[in-house]
Amino acid sequence: MLLAISLWSCAGSQPAPAEPIAAPAPPPDPLPSWNKTAVKTQIIEFVERVTDPDSPAFVEEPKRVATFDNDGTLWVEQPLYTELTFAVSRVKELAPTHPEWKRQEPFKSLLAGNTAGVVATGQRGLVEIVLASHTGMSTALFDTIVVDWLNKARHPHFDRSYTELAYRPQLELLAYLRDKGFKTFIVSGGSVDFMRPWTERVYGIPPDQVVGSAVATRFEIQGGQPSLLRLPEVAFVDDKAGKPVGIHQFIGRKPIFAFGNSDGDLEMLQWTTIGSGGARLGLLLHHDDADREYAYDRDSMVGRLDKALDAAPNADWVVVSMKNDWNTVF
Amino acid sequence: MLLAISLWSCAGSQPAPAEPIAAPAPPPDPLPSWNKTAVKTQIIEFVERVTDPDSPAFVEEPKRVATFDNDGTLWVEQPLYTELTFAVSRVKELAPTHPEWKRQEPFKSLLAGNTAGVVATGQRGLVEIVLASHTGMSTALFDTIVVDWLNKARHPHFDRSYTELAYRPQLELLAYLRDKGFKTFIVSGGSVDFMRPWTERVYGIPPDQVVGSAVATRFEIQGGQPSLLRLPEVAFVDDKAGKPVGIHQFIGRKPIFAFGNSDGDLEMLQWTTIGSGGARLGLLLHHDDADREYAYDRDSMVGRLDKALDAAPNADWVVVSMKNDWNTVF
Repeated sequence: MLLAISLWSCAGSQPAPAEPIAAPAPPPDPLPSWNKTAVKTQIIEFVERVTDPDSPAFVEEPKRVATFDNDGTLWVEQPLYTELTFAVSRVKELAPTHPEWKRQEPFKSLLAGNTAGVVATGQRGLVEIVLASHTGMSTALFDTIVVDWLNKARHPHFDRSYTELAYRPQLELLAYLRDKGFKTFIVSGGSVDFMRPWTERVYGIPPDQVVGSAVATRFEIQGGQPSLLRLPEVAFVDDKAGKPVGIHQFIGRKPIFAFGNSDGDLEMLQWTTIGSGGARLGLLLHHDDADREYAYDRDSMVGRLDKALDAAPNADWVVVSMKNDWNTVF
Repeated sequence: MLLAISLWSCAGSQPAPAEPIAAPAPPPDPLPSWNKTAVKTQIIEFVERVTDPDSPAFVEEPKRVATFDNDGTLWVEQPLYTELTFAVSRVKELAPTHPEWKRQEPFKSLLAGNTAGVVATGQRGLVEIVLASHTGMSTALFDTIVVDWLNKARHPHFDRSYTELAYRPQLELLAYLRDKGFKTFIVSGGSVDFMRPWTERVYGIPPDQVVGSAVATRFEIQGGQPSLLRLPEVAFVDDKAGKPVGIHQFIGRKPIFAFGNSDGDLEMLQWTTIGSGGARLGLLLHHDDADREYAYDRDSMVGRLDKALDAAPNADWVVVSMKNDWNTVF
């Protein structure tokens, strides 16, 4: 649907100690929230192979592109995509100025709390909810609306702010990859402008490294002030087969590492790993942890993982079990 | 239309020298190909103001976004945009497999060497030439076609390869800005996929920092191999009012520095410099150097500089004279 770090610090100009020193301690584990499983070994071995200049699989630094899906890969997506929760909240807020919504689907069902009615309107209904909630204002105002909402909204189950529901093992992985010379990107079906206001703070990923779905905008100058008006028109859908298109259009280079969690990520993993020559790593996060987070896959409306799970063994994609491979979730 | 017409280095652990040392030499000039004019002073003062933590105009590093137009700003665009020269060459190459072009404009005029006839087909004709020459193949094959052409093509006047016609003062400026913590982007009306294969080598700008016009692509898997097919459909035009739209969509952050040379850059400079608060610098390269390069502005079909030149004084944009401000062009 549209819907971390080993820095060599400067030693200054202190003289070397005169006494012999003990053998150096082993380097600290870059992924402490990952259990010592085969999955962790595969990740670290891949990174070491592509970053070791003496390895036949060495990849020079500018080509170390890593892409991550967002919803369900970097942060929680259940029980409903955060952006859709935002959209619903905003439609309710805007309803008093849209009396016609009382008679128009999907708004009628949404405002009546009739989830089945909203779902019955299908993809088209969802797009209408997204456009109604995401457009008609300047890009600057939309940023403020997103930040304000995220500051006050709480996840219904975890009772934390959504940005506190980023997965700690993934934050460690992002930092580890960057420390090894990778450029880390988000490639998400969600709206790019719903993510950019906070991805740098939460994930260390700057706005220009976020690829996502987008509405059209129009440049205007009013009263001498330039602005970009968000238009009720979908400009790009960065999901499924749209992900390789988005990767090409925005990044312009094939990733060598891609991490997703749902069928929306199937084509991104295919594009990254198949037929490229050289070392490539594709990963899927399997939500199998009902105790600490959620357990869902083939039958879920949100973040369905079915075709991609079937494709994983033949494609040599690594299926990460939240339950077994992570010792900490948040 | 696609082509509108101090670093503190680590001292290590060496002890401080026992002898007093001479006063340090002044730092080397970061812009040796720029004459010591008011323009150079303005550039350096701007960069120092936004990078000095004690300055009220200080901008933290992630927000130091600099955007450069390409044609006529970073490399030569006369007598014809390089990409259009490429397109014409490719149409001629493809003509034997398109017998219908002998009867169809703009191809008929193009193949007959009738420039006036091509120009008479206007914007629509140009788009047809670009689509005919830029689509119908995979993105990987198009990369190869571009690189092969650039390897053999020579500029008709300078008799050098086009990528040797990047302006040396601008290469110095790009490097200077990056050294001061800026992230440098290209924002060009030209096709993003015509630029990306060589911008890293020539300008030090990686593919994901190149924003440009684009055709649509479609993800396909044939014989088990994924590819992106380039379709004869314009997906985005990154020119004039499209430049702020492209900056928002691809970079997601307002530049604080923008450099252009034509009316195609007017809106980019407005978006960058007007009403943003904080220090901003907009620049226009004025081609006034018929001896070393070309002299053109208001009446040129290629790279017309008219409205933006009129707007410059009120907007406090710096007009750079190639003749007076640069001591070296290439």
